[in-house]
Amino acid sequence: MQTFQQEIQLPAFKRGFHLITHEILEGLPEISQLNAGLLQVFIKHTSASLTINENADPTVREDFESHFNVLVPESATYFKHTFEGPDDMTSHIKSSLLGSSVTVPITNGRLNLGTWQGIYLCEHRNYGGQRRLVLTAFGS
Amino acid sequence: MQTFQQEIQLPAFKRGFHLITHEILEGLPEISQLNAGLLQVFIKHTSASLTINENADPTVREDFESHFNVLVPESATYFKHTFEGPDDMTSHIKSSLLGSSVTVPITNGRLNLGTWQGIYLCEHRNYGGQRRLVLTAFGS
Amino acid sequence: MQTFQQEIQLPAFKRGFHLITHEILEGLPEISQLNAGLLQVFIKHTSASLTINENADPTVREDFESHFNVLVPESATYFKHTFEGPDDMTSHIKSSLLGSSVTVPITNGRLNLGTWQGIYLCEHRNYGGQRRLVLTAFGS
Repeated sequence: MQTFQQEIQLPAFKRGFHLITHEILEGLPEISQLNAGLLQVFIKHTSASLTINENADPTVREDFESHFNVLVPESATYFKHTFEGPDDMTSHIKSSLLGSSVTVPITNGRLNLGTWQGIYLCEHRNYGGQRRLVLTAFGS
Repeated sequence: MQTFQQEIQLPAFKRGFHLITHEILEGLPEISQLNAGLLQVFIKHTSASLTINENADPTVREDFESHFNVLVPESATYFKHTFEGPDDMTSHIKSSLLGSSVTVPITNGRLNLGTWQGIYLCEHRNYGGQRRLVLTAFGS
Repeated sequence: MQTFQQEIQLPAFKRGFHLITHEILEGLPEISQLNAGLLQVFIKHTSASLTINENADPTVREDFESHFNVLVPESATYFKHTFEGPDDMTSHIKSSLLGSSVTVPITNGRLNLGTWQGIYLCEHRNYGGQRRLVLTAFGS
């Protein structure tokens, strides 16, 4: 068994949900050396997150943004952590609802995703800036 | 260290939350060869998901279905991705709230779950059909 | 590649969100032996969970508690699984929203968390008691 690890920096994305499968594959080409294993993608931030979902229709990603704004509304009056702006505490909660990592099987040197699956960067802040990811692949 | 990987197909389950711990154990008997490791279960779909929760009282799984229908209601009027039916976009969101994989420790050849823990298939579609899982176990 | 695994017991925490990064590092000092790998932390319970979020301002953890009580209210009248008290079924659902494990990259013998990231125990019950975690680290 082998381990490959690489830290990469994404360009700044606007608030919303964005497909980044391609950026991840480019960031760790050693995935192709593994017959059977796993890739973990970890985001080193607490106001952006990662998930796996539909990779084809852009309105799916728009609907994610709409619904997460309903689930965690910036109009909530009970938040105490407000000094970084109304989009900060909501971003922390959205991040934990979605999670700070995704893990995908590797089979025959490729990510073994379903036909319609892609990896999303979920940018919850209005101006989140560049985000750092750690890519760790291992297997045999 | 060793890696074992197997892709399995579940029978079609009706919409709701279902215990599938047994199907997973049957799908990868090599778990018994690992003294210390992890099992990842990954679902290759974006409208069904996986989680770990209470394995005894069926009303817990019914209450999950009731509450997720409140958290992500099909009556929401702001969804744009509607051409696959009212249960499609809600299924995508529920899937990301719960996640497309679970990872469980393996200890002495067995899943090291708590007494009350089981693995759930969360079928969010009305007619989701058969679902494919990738089981990856590794360790020493 | 090597695997290290240890089961630890946390002291009872009150209902709410609590930083436990230090307890985890103390529980598996072998993390320092890994140049590149992953640590998984798994909780063996269905009414408490784990997540990664902001490690500095205590009001962030208070706001998590406030908002999860809104997302999964004990006043909901449709729950059938009620015989263990009003905080039980809600705890099961909160646990699955947040998840029963977190996985963090290990780089040069340390957890490769972002500056502001810490690991939270999310205690959803009023009196949850001691909680058991399984720590599994592997890599090279």
